[in-house]
Amino acid sequence: MSQSTFGEKFKVTTWGESHGKALGVVIDGCPAGLPLCEEDVQRMLDRRKPGQNRFSTSRTEEDQVEILSGVFDGKTTGAPVSLIIYNRNQHSGDYGNIADAYRPGHADFTFDQKYGFRDYRGGGRSSGRETVGRVAAGAIAARILGELGISFTTFTRSIGPIEASVFRAEEISKNPFYMPDASAAEKAGAYLEQCIKEQNSAGGVVECRISGVPAGLGDPVFGKLDALFAQALMSIGAVKAVEIGDGILVSRMTGSENNDGFCMTENTICKTSNHAGGILGGISDGSEIILRVHIKPTPSISKPQETVTAHGEQISLEIHGRHDPVIVPRAVAAVESMAALVLTDALFRNMSSRMDHIKRFYEK
Amino acid sequence: MSQSTFGEKFKVTTWGESHGKALGVVIDGCPAGLPLCEEDVQRMLDRRKPGQNRFSTSRTEEDQVEILSGVFDGKTTGAPVSLIIYNRNQHSGDYGNIADAYRPGHADFTFDQKYGFRDYRGGGRSSGRETVGRVAAGAIAARILGELGISFTTFTRSIGPIEASVFRAEEISKNPFYMPDASAAEKAGAYLEQCIKEQNSAGGVVECRISGVPAGLGDPVFGKLDALFAQALMSIGAVKAVEIGDGILVSRMTGSENNDGFCMTENTICKTSNHAGGILGGISDGSEIILRVHIKPTPSISKPQETVTAHGEQISLEIHGRHDPVIVPRAVAAVESMAALVLTDALFRNMSSRMDHIKRFYEK
Amino acid sequence: MSQSTFGEKFKVTTWGESHGKALGVVIDGCPAGLPLCEEDVQRMLDRRKPGQNRFSTSRTEEDQVEILSGVFDGKTTGAPVSLIIYNRNQHSGDYGNIADAYRPGHADFTFDQKYGFRDYRGGGRSSGRETVGRVAAGAIAARILGELGISFTTFTRSIGPIEASVFRAEEISKNPFYMPDASAAEKAGAYLEQCIKEQNSAGGVVECRISGVPAGLGDPVFGKLDALFAQALMSIGAVKAVEIGDGILVSRMTGSENNDGFCMTENTICKTSNHAGGILGGISDGSEIILRVHIKPTPSISKPQETVTAHGEQISLEIHGRHDPVIVPRAVAAVESMAALVLTDALFRNMSSRMDHIKRFYEK
Amino acid sequence: MSQSTFGEKFKVTTWGESHGKALGVVIDGCPAGLPLCEEDVQRMLDRRKPGQNRFSTSRTEEDQVEILSGVFDGKTTGAPVSLIIYNRNQHSGDYGNIADAYRPGHADFTFDQKYGFRDYRGGGRSSGRETVGRVAAGAIAARILGELGISFTTFTRSIGPIEASVFRAEEISKNPFYMPDASAAEKAGAYLEQCIKEQNSAGGVVECRISGVPAGLGDPVFGKLDALFAQALMSIGAVKAVEIGDGILVSRMTGSENNDGFCMTENTICKTSNHAGGILGGISDGSEIILRVHIKPTPSISKPQETVTAHGEQISLEIHGRHDPVIVPRAVAAVESMAALVLTDALFRNMSSRMDHIKRFYEK
Repeated sequence: MSQSTFGEKFKVTTWGESHGKALGVVIDGCPAGLPLCEEDVQRMLDRRKPGQNRFSTSRTEEDQVEILSGVFDGKTTGAPVSLIIYNRNQHSGDYGNIADAYRPGHADFTFDQKYGFRDYRGGGRSSGRETVGRVAAGAIAARILGELGISFTTFTRSIGPIEASVFRAEEISKNPFYMPDASAAEKAGAYLEQCIKEQNSAGGVVECRISGVPAGLGDPVFGKLDALFAQALMSIGAVKAVEIGDGILVSRMTGSENNDGFCMTENTICKTSNHAGGILGGISDGSEIILRVHIKPTPSISKPQETVTAHGEQISLEIHGRHDPVIVPRAVAAVESMAALVLTDALFRNMSSRMDHIKRFYEK
Repeated sequence: MSQSTFGEKFKVTTWGESHGKALGVVIDGCPAGLPLCEEDVQRMLDRRKPGQNRFSTSRTEEDQVEILSGVFDGKTTGAPVSLIIYNRNQHSGDYGNIADAYRPGHADFTFDQKYGFRDYRGGGRSSGRETVGRVAAGAIAARILGELGISFTTFTRSIGPIEASVFRAEEISKNPFYMPDASAAEKAGAYLEQCIKEQNSAGGVVECRISGVPAGLGDPVFGKLDALFAQALMSIGAVKAVEIGDGILVSRMTGSENNDGFCMTENTICKTSNHAGGILGGISDGSEIILRVHIKPTPSISKPQETVTAHGEQISLEIHGRHDPVIVPRAVAAVESMAALVLTDALFRNMSSRMDHIKRFYEK
Repeated sequence: MSQSTFGEKFKVTTWGESHGKALGVVIDGCPAGLPLCEEDVQRMLDRRKPGQNRFSTSRTEEDQVEILSGVFDGKTTGAPVSLIIYNRNQHSGDYGNIADAYRPGHADFTFDQKYGFRDYRGGGRSSGRETVGRVAAGAIAARILGELGISFTTFTRSIGPIEASVFRAEEISKNPFYMPDASAAEKAGAYLEQCIKEQNSAGGVVECRISGVPAGLGDPVFGKLDALFAQALMSIGAVKAVEIGDGILVSRMTGSENNDGFCMTENTICKTSNHAGGILGGISDGSEIILRVHIKPTPSISKPQETVTAHGEQISLEIHGRHDPVIVPRAVAAVESMAALVLTDALFRNMSSRMDHIKRFYEK
Repeated sequence: MSQSTFGEKFKVTTWGESHGKALGVVIDGCPAGLPLCEEDVQRMLDRRKPGQNRFSTSRTEEDQVEILSGVFDGKTTGAPVSLIIYNRNQHSGDYGNIADAYRPGHADFTFDQKYGFRDYRGGGRSSGRETVGRVAAGAIAARILGELGISFTTFTRSIGPIEASVFRAEEISKNPFYMPDASAAEKAGAYLEQCIKEQNSAGGVVECRISGVPAGLGDPVFGKLDALFAQALMSIGAVKAVEIGDGILVSRMTGSENNDGFCMTENTICKTSNHAGGILGGISDGSEIILRVHIKPTPSISKPQETVTAHGEQISLEIHGRHDPVIVPRAVAAVESMAALVLTDALFRNMSSRMDHIKRFYEK
């Protein structure tokens, strides 16, 4: 599962650098017979598109996706689905002055240490632009899950110190931050204005809620559903913490506070609360899955910073160019996509867990 | 990477249930020539052993490990190392009265949903006892890392609301909670007494710091070192949140606060701070790696709880028997073990990342 | 898939050396609800047991299997099934005189080159005894396949130059060589007598036919069913060639001779011949699967051989001790087991290949 | 390892159909610092290019490769290398008349059975055209191996009944069949003329010899080097048998005939013969590796064949269009490429097999 491939059954391989010719993704293990067109993928990509407002980089990446294989007559064939997004707006000149500097908070130093070599044109594989491939694949996963009645609500819970204090689903798409609270969104705007003025940047929290997930997904021990969500979400650049359900709060709760009781509702076994966030023992319990990630502030700031070059020269660095003062809103689509990849894979892996189900499947 | 195997190059497969005949682990990909004896593994296992004090279950599991293969004349041979720990103290009778009930906070319900079948003798693979195999494997990983100058400091940062406010490494082994603060440990003891009296339980936070890690470990995109730590740690039962470095705090910081600058120290490039917790862009940066997990309170409590049985009958459940009022101290060894597995695998995977290193390796 | 683990969904990990304490196997991904007892496994193990006649080593390995985990109340639970076979009859003294010599046809030299270290007590992981774990796992796979109506006929096609010229299934179990031709078996016996007299050994061919396999198993490109059979069978020590269907004969045939036509039989699409051996484009076509392996003569012979020691000393080596003059009959169970592992894994992997099947599965 | 990805450390994912927009491959785990340009890949692709003579399909696929990522300033960066080859010459009309028919010897029937759906434009993923991606990746693998002194000689051993009776390396590139025997090549030409006249096709045998391979590559048990070669080679469409070294001949040899003795040559341990084909116990022994594959005759023939349509209608089928009367010569590059992929992966996997080597590596 190293490097650029994610998943076992619904296997996603991304490629491409921020300033190369193109980026793309190959989805292997996509079942045959799924209706799919470019527009299905484009919609998800547009949610992470920059240049939509003044709090986002002014690079106007078009991010136009093209399906190269795996789809015939409007349906997937079971063959790998290859998607490509050409880079149309590469100002690699913008990065020339930092080719040698180790930018604080960036991966320049660690890439040099690992590979003895760096593509200095703006982050390469550690650029936020790498998520284009994940989001394109996530769109297909979300489409599969949609056919099974599984749906996502993903939103920004906070930007810097500004937290949403109410949850109104219909608000999410109405503000540039994907916050479920109009008043918090307004305050977040003001806060970011201040960050820009101070040549600084902000972080935030994204939350993802998934409903309609059948009980029984995920495996005991290392393949726990929450463990796979944690890997998937922490693999998004800039994420520094992942929570499931009540997350960090559980460490201060008592057992009687934290345990979710079971009860009967209309002849179905339900839980009376959902501190666990829909996962017990690493396996989905049928209630809403709740995931939360903490995202660090954009490391590229124009405020001067002390650092060194690859040659050990001490310098003061000002990073100019087109950078988001906050990447949190653009991370919303990436979080949802990674969650969709995990869930699709878990759905497929689960199909052989019971002998009676296997027999029924092959008796058809 | 599903279910019971972890790692790509240093591949660990655990097996066994809490109330079966034995538990064990097979380590495949252990390099030849590592000095290894049973005592090396036993020491790590003893750190998670219950029954050491009144805050831990009174089950006196002996957890005596035996090496069945892969070691010859005191050294590993390159063949799989198979370790077995027989269950000597199975009171499966203790669990009889709950065979049918869905215990709140446990995986009984989800296992039934997944497998249509449950080993009701105390949790099976979702029992904390499952970590025996991980810890045995972790002991070998830690031994390999030790040979390369990598060392661990793992401790309890908090129990319920009681947090360590100072860090004294030498205190960690002096109290039953592995806290680095004698006074906090005392308060934790008092807090747990209260929990026991109230038939309740507590959670807490474990932190792991790793020093001596060379820069360059971990891969971009999905195999980020922090992503693999997140999976590994979240796969430990009861963990509900994972943080790297400053973790959840980063979402409220600004870029200039959160970025770690670089500087020259004795002709070496160093960082002036470590908010990142030793990982940049998913790759180790040579500074201390800092991991933190949030653990939920023990779900087994004797306080009555409302729940249902597998047959849909509403009942009030009191769980008696031998349960830890807090599992946090016993999780310390599990956290360190999982971190060691991730790091060993990353070390091995990294060896083919540069053409010049590969050529030098084969020119020997 | 390196080293000691085979399969993706039905994942088998073997461990143990010929002269260690025990050998074993962990089966991860075994579905819950399969009836299983030790006797089910023992039967398959007994087919590879030595010491059954004068053409097999006189070591009377008992090979008594014990189930350590994954089975409860006579059924699998979905947890890993761990099987152990203790080595009861280790005469490691027998091997003392060859500790230093590089035995021709053995892996002594290559193990030394790879690991810088060798367990000289008789082959370690390259010993034929390693197949014990495969066969134990294969017994479980065959049990799963049996529930789905898939069955195996595996037999010895030739020993040295003696080839079965008729096929009578009922003969297979009546002679010590598992040949389907009583008269050929008799000649094989005489041929082996001669080999023993000349302090020499013989090879042979094993064939495996599988019926009841549904069409559609296997994947295009790298996961072709025949490719996985080839890996599985070639991984059995001493196998030097693998054929599918008509195998080597196809290279001399014309297209019109080799193509299998399709026809309608009782409203079902069938093939008019089976040169392909049941696999087209790497996917099962519903007709009988036919596999064939070519096994080299036992490398341990008492006839003097020129070789060198690890120290570069030229010596003449006579290998005495308990060795089979032919291992072909004992390989029959190993071939069938590996074929069963491949097929079980393919069955499970195939379940998510069509969107309509996935929807039907989760609608239940 | 299912479907479209091959390898663990040098991981190759192919995509694309014979009649889609493009085909391509993503190579993940390519070490940083390898000099690489499009011409390096193009040379290998040209070896499998059709339309080079009258015994090859008249489709003039240009097969122009483009590097989309992973290379910067003429060297690999450690990021995935994405290669694309656009399909410039798609006559899908050619296939219209067979959209419904199950062509004998083709995968039409099995794809329909598996996916419930077929891209009838000429084979899709089961077309020989799929090997374009393998060969492009193989070119990079071969380049890495070349830097380590490992080289390949791959040639056609026979076409139909015409076998090369001498081996002259310099002849291989001088005839359209890549045969090492000028006279046999001439006879092969005459034989194919006859096949064409009879509206029929031919098969053949390809052999691959690899020299300069260090001893110690490959793993015991399931990851044996020969097992991985077998999987890799059998995964090439039309291959029905794989042999290592003496292959099928070993089953009739005695131990004393088949065993390769060891001797000292210039203070180095060598073998006195190479029946084993360079692999002992699944691990390379330092001598030449010898692989052989048996390829079936092209299934597309214009001679009338009896078959059925997807609707169960019995028909007589004549396949016209641009088909090779023999695919063996074009398979030469595919065989060499797959062998190169296996070997590169084995080289990388082997690096962590010894503790002393790991320590030396990280002490640098």
